[in-house]
Amino acid sequence: MQFHHHGYVSTDPRIKPAAGVGIDRPAELPDEVDVLIVGSGPAGMLTAAQMAQFPSITTALVERRDGRLVIGQADGIQARSVETFQAFGFAERIIQEAYRITEMCFWKPDPENPDHIVRTARTPDDPTGISEFPHLIVNQARVLDYYAEAAAHGPARLKPNYGWEFQTLEVTNEGDYPVKVTLTDEDGNERIISAKYVLGADGARSRVRDSIGAQHVGGVSYHAWGVMDVLANTDFPDVRTKCAIQSKHGSILHIPREGGYLFRMYVDLGEVAADDAGAVRKTPLDTIIAKANEIITPYSLDVKDVAWWSVYEVGHRVTDRFDDVPVEQAGERMPHVFIAGDACHTHSAKAGQGMNVSMQDGFNLGWKLAHVLEGRSPESLLSTYTAERQVIAQNLIDFDREWSSMMAAKSEELESPTALEEFYVKTIEFPAGFMTEYPESLIVGNNKHQDLAKGFTLGKRFKSVIVNRVCDGNPKHLGHLHQADGRWRIYAFGDKDSTKLHEFGEWLGTNPESPVLAHRKDGEDINALFDVKAIYQTPYDEVDITKAPAIFKPENGPFGLVNLENVFAADVEESIFDIRELSKDGVVVVVRPDQYVAHVLPLDATDELAAFFKPIFTV
Amino acid sequence: MQFHHHGYVSTDPRIKPAAGVGIDRPAELPDEVDVLIVGSGPAGMLTAAQMAQFPSITTALVERRDGRLVIGQADGIQARSVETFQAFGFAERIIQEAYRITEMCFWKPDPENPDHIVRTARTPDDPTGISEFPHLIVNQARVLDYYAEAAAHGPARLKPNYGWEFQTLEVTNEGDYPVKVTLTDEDGNERIISAKYVLGADGARSRVRDSIGAQHVGGVSYHAWGVMDVLANTDFPDVRTKCAIQSKHGSILHIPREGGYLFRMYVDLGEVAADDAGAVRKTPLDTIIAKANEIITPYSLDVKDVAWWSVYEVGHRVTDRFDDVPVEQAGERMPHVFIAGDACHTHSAKAGQGMNVSMQDGFNLGWKLAHVLEGRSPESLLSTYTAERQVIAQNLIDFDREWSSMMAAKSEELESPTALEEFYVKTIEFPAGFMTEYPESLIVGNNKHQDLAKGFTLGKRFKSVIVNRVCDGNPKHLGHLHQADGRWRIYAFGDKDSTKLHEFGEWLGTNPESPVLAHRKDGEDINALFDVKAIYQTPYDEVDITKAPAIFKPENGPFGLVNLENVFAADVEESIFDIRELSKDGVVVVVRPDQYVAHVLPLDATDELAAFFKPIFTV
Ligand SMILES: Cc1cc2nc3c(=O)[nH]c(=O)nc-3n(C[C@H](O)[C@H](O)[C@H](O)COP(=O)(O)OP(=O)(O)OC[C@H]3O[C@@H](n4cnc5c(N)ncnc54)[C@H](O)[C@@H]3O)c2cc1C
Ligand SMILES: Cc1cc2nc3c(=O)[nH]c(=O)nc-3n(C[C@H](O)[C@H](O)[C@H](O)COP(=O)(O)OP(=O)(O)OC[C@H]3O[C@@H](n4cnc5c(N)ncnc54)[C@H](O)[C@@H]3O)c2cc1C
Repeated sequence: MQFHHHGYVSTDPRIKPAAGVGIDRPAELPDEVDVLIVGSGPAGMLTAAQMAQFPSITTALVERRDGRLVIGQADGIQARSVETFQAFGFAERIIQEAYRITEMCFWKPDPENPDHIVRTARTPDDPTGISEFPHLIVNQARVLDYYAEAAAHGPARLKPNYGWEFQTLEVTNEGDYPVKVTLTDEDGNERIISAKYVLGADGARSRVRDSIGAQHVGGVSYHAWGVMDVLANTDFPDVRTKCAIQSKHGSILHIPREGGYLFRMYVDLGEVAADDAGAVRKTPLDTIIAKANEIITPYSLDVKDVAWWSVYEVGHRVTDRFDDVPVEQAGERMPHVFIAGDACHTHSAKAGQGMNVSMQDGFNLGWKLAHVLEGRSPESLLSTYTAERQVIAQNLIDFDREWSSMMAAKSEELESPTALEEFYVKTIEFPAGFMTEYPESLIVGNNKHQDLAKGFTLGKRFKSVIVNRVCDGNPKHLGHLHQADGRWRIYAFGDKDSTKLHEFGEWLGTNPESPVLAHRKDGEDINALFDVKAIYQTPYDEVDITKAPAIFKPENGPFGLVNLENVFAADVEESIFDIRELSKDGVVVVVRPDQYVAHVLPLDATDELAAFFKPIFTV
Repeated sequence: MQFHHHGYVSTDPRIKPAAGVGIDRPAELPDEVDVLIVGSGPAGMLTAAQMAQFPSITTALVERRDGRLVIGQADGIQARSVETFQAFGFAERIIQEAYRITEMCFWKPDPENPDHIVRTARTPDDPTGISEFPHLIVNQARVLDYYAEAAAHGPARLKPNYGWEFQTLEVTNEGDYPVKVTLTDEDGNERIISAKYVLGADGARSRVRDSIGAQHVGGVSYHAWGVMDVLANTDFPDVRTKCAIQSKHGSILHIPREGGYLFRMYVDLGEVAADDAGAVRKTPLDTIIAKANEIITPYSLDVKDVAWWSVYEVGHRVTDRFDDVPVEQAGERMPHVFIAGDACHTHSAKAGQGMNVSMQDGFNLGWKLAHVLEGRSPESLLSTYTAERQVIAQNLIDFDREWSSMMAAKSEELESPTALEEFYVKTIEFPAGFMTEYPESLIVGNNKHQDLAKGFTLGKRFKSVIVNRVCDGNPKHLGHLHQADGRWRIYAFGDKDSTKLHEFGEWLGTNPESPVLAHRKDGEDINALFDVKAIYQTPYDEVDITKAPAIFKPENGPFGLVNLENVFAADVEESIFDIRELSKDGVVVVVRPDQYVAHVLPLDATDELAAFFKPIFTV
């Protein structure tokens, strides 16, 4: 964490000084905003937290509810989400209060006595070390609290405006604020807000989606589940372990919750008949508890308190486009309205994906909006949002359909008795959130030089490794220094004797073609848009930091203080060069503001580097 | 972190529900309090955070300043303090914002050119792995903020009362609130507060100390230092590393500070003449900066901003007693007034000890006050405070005197050219805060069975090891589960086949002689005073948790929910039995509420266990 360089900070350094629109920002909803976010779920809140980092952008978030979410909804947090929390500064805290999944148990009917269940497998949750972050369970309400805090503590000081319901919108294509949005307050009074951009993060029944004429398409088969957050005593020995339980009487997905006592059970209520007309949703709590007891026989639950419960049916649907530009006009018109999260994709809760994918939608969009609104990038950057995220949504639906139908199937219906746990282990990268691989585009380079950095796959998220900071010998997870500040990262991994590294550094810091100089706005700090880091092959105590090119030690803030914390060296024993298979001749790895690898280039491919950034930036 | 067992907690689980005196607690200072703390430095604030955990105890903290400390004072946080922060729930957060010391560099005059300094050594900060916690640098103001938060979020909802100055006190030995304390507000208006106990944590010039007639005794030699927190650019290559710099022109202790830019320099201003009469304190900032530049030649500092600076002289003094009972009356009269922190011991800042030792004073006293005030323990427990802490203070002074005179010495005056770094490495346990070893007393048992647990030295702090939680397979640092909640810990380490472990568990949970039952107050949870944990030798996935005796799975809270999180197993590869040299026949380790090992006993020494606790508790 860097601070004090604009003068001494006495209080919590996580609370950034208010700047720009954040200074004395009024609490009321303004008439005109750059970005209007509808909905304070995970997608909307992450986007709000992201937008709050930009002091020149006015963002407002409206939410129908009269206050924060109190209870219920999603609770499974995949490692990629924890990685994202880290970028927003609250991973440590949420880990501390969450339940951590380290393994999953599988229960099946006992072959000797099929009325009873027995444990048939215990599988580690992340056997291949896909991430240094844990897989957590914690209530959605807390996740939203942390994003709300990040939004409130960002320089733009953003707080949700509760009690406003989105009704409809019109894209006028006129004036600076072309989207006219109609809201109503708690008393039904209408209000029109004008916005440059609107994000519909208003959930599965999205009215923003409807208002842009997007279609929510997908299967018609519905399956019903009872879900309950329970305080109970039980003799079921795995009550504090995540379990998939399949029995003669149906199945349960069992999830221990944060705090050591609470747990959640998703109890299978079966396929819903086409003419059910919502009858299943009237299933009483007692029936769900009785069903759960039946499924876990010979064990039983003594329920003391039910914190929250619900019955819901799920289909699998994806929206045909994630913005207001009809497919046939793609590329011609530029989008002004976007949808994210459940508004784009709905599916079961079984794979614990809903909240997670929704957040990544927001993370993908936020920095793009900021680049355009800060006047750095052309509007066409915004078209990459639909292009990138729609595929992900489709993958999600496909995965979820397979997993949830396997979960609901009886043992004997599955291909093999171990089909469920095999599928779980085989596909682990997906539910952990790391399968996303954006294809080549305006913001993902070609893979000509991928071999120079085999471990940093283009289009996938930058997977962190610990390196040593030269100035103080501190071991640091390189990727964790990548905060959600809207900046691009350029990692310059050195060659053996650092000759090419230093040449690259000189070019980057002095040549007018260098993206760092070419796309710098007048008067801004040299590292305002690009955070450039050098990683030497030499052990850290042999690197002479005084010799490192100036671009690796940028001057900052009002005092022009030198930042010495961007110069690193590979660890002697666990070298990032070995772990990520980096060329010993050095390599440049470019990472997008949302942590995805954008380019891999040799140290001397300065022309290619310059050319990559040219279309991304207008300044 | 355990929560939800008293019903669903939707908001931050670190904020404990208000209880007892904390419910609708008024902000004003009451006329009568159980405990009055004077001074909101590290000693006072820790004690406040501790007392706030007890809903039946009314504690108030008065502070002369009109608000929180803003800047300055101590910044070196030893590992033991971070361990203590962990017990108060904020270690992760403060680590995140602090500077972490991983090594220390030593600079000396260059033998070839004695006008210049050269680096002569680079030593790792904790070469022997004395603690899993880091050694940090962070401003005292932030440490106090975190304690203030812990106090405000404790069930008793304690907030400092700023703007009250302590004048004097009188111990009347009359009534329920025998100590009459005279305070003045900002306008000089007097007010008398009656207290059961008073803690003077009012710093080096303590008036509480004076009012109980204690003597601050010690050496008369004074040494002056200029200290400055600086934002500067420099070519000194170790500016981000802790350094001891000795030059022809004097010496500097150089400390990088949190946030990546700021650093602190302690610049030696030499011995103070007996007739100086404070003249040295008038040394201007420019002189200190010039002196610093001279010392670091051939490097130089380009100072951009000075956040804080001060000139101070230090002597070495210890107070003859830490409570109001004159030495000749010790044991006859019970203490009602205590002093802690700088009020008891003053010394140089060179070894970074002041804040740290002060906090441990408070940690030692807090739970004892709570035990007595909750009616659990006899007042004689309070006499152990002076007995235990005075020795520590003397050790501190001795250590500090040696270290600071070595620091101030010229190279050629030292025994050998490497004397300074050798002393630093040799004595590392001391400045890390782990040398404390309380002797046998009312609350530290005899060492007859020490051999059964060689790695848990009686009277030293319980050094944590990772074990596996049986109910969910989560690896957990056993010691980190020991929160500052005033409870004793009983760790029952199992024998090979767990026979004796289960016998011990049965006895502990059912025999009327068991301390858990004998000292339980009517109606309170079975784990209100004792947190009992079992650690099996068997791998965690082979332990049948359903067979563990009930005392290891206590029922909790209004619903009588079973707590499954107290049953552990040694890790197969890194077994706590091997690492701490525990007997394979099992062993019981008792740990005090302030994390010091109180007793080591065989699993079958139930009589000895019962006998140990009898004099500690009156209930
Ligand atoms: C009752 C329930 C239970 C669920 N359980 C699980 C689960 O167990 N596991 C799991 O993985 N997923 C679960 N989900 C799904 C998961 O919560 C979603 O995938 C995730 O919340 C999607 O995030 P989002 O931001 O897209 O939308 P949401 O979290 O749905 O947020 C949408 C927000 O928009 C607001 N809103 C809606 N319409 C308007 C409007 N017109 N004007 C203003 N505001 C509006 C809503 O009040 C809401 O706050 C559940 C969802 C629900 C509703
Ligand atoms: C200017 C200064 C610089 C220091 N620099 C360093 C350093 O660099 N490194 C280091 O290790 N240590 C340093 N110290 C020492 C370190 O800060 C102390 O060891 C530590 O703060 C002791 O904690 P404490 O709680 O005992 O007392 P303090 O932190 O001194 O707190 C005492 C509190 O009591 C209040 N108080 C005093 N008298 C009264 C009264 N009559 N009524 C009400 N309130 C009262 C004071 O305002 C103060 O808040 C410094 C101390 C000072 C004063």
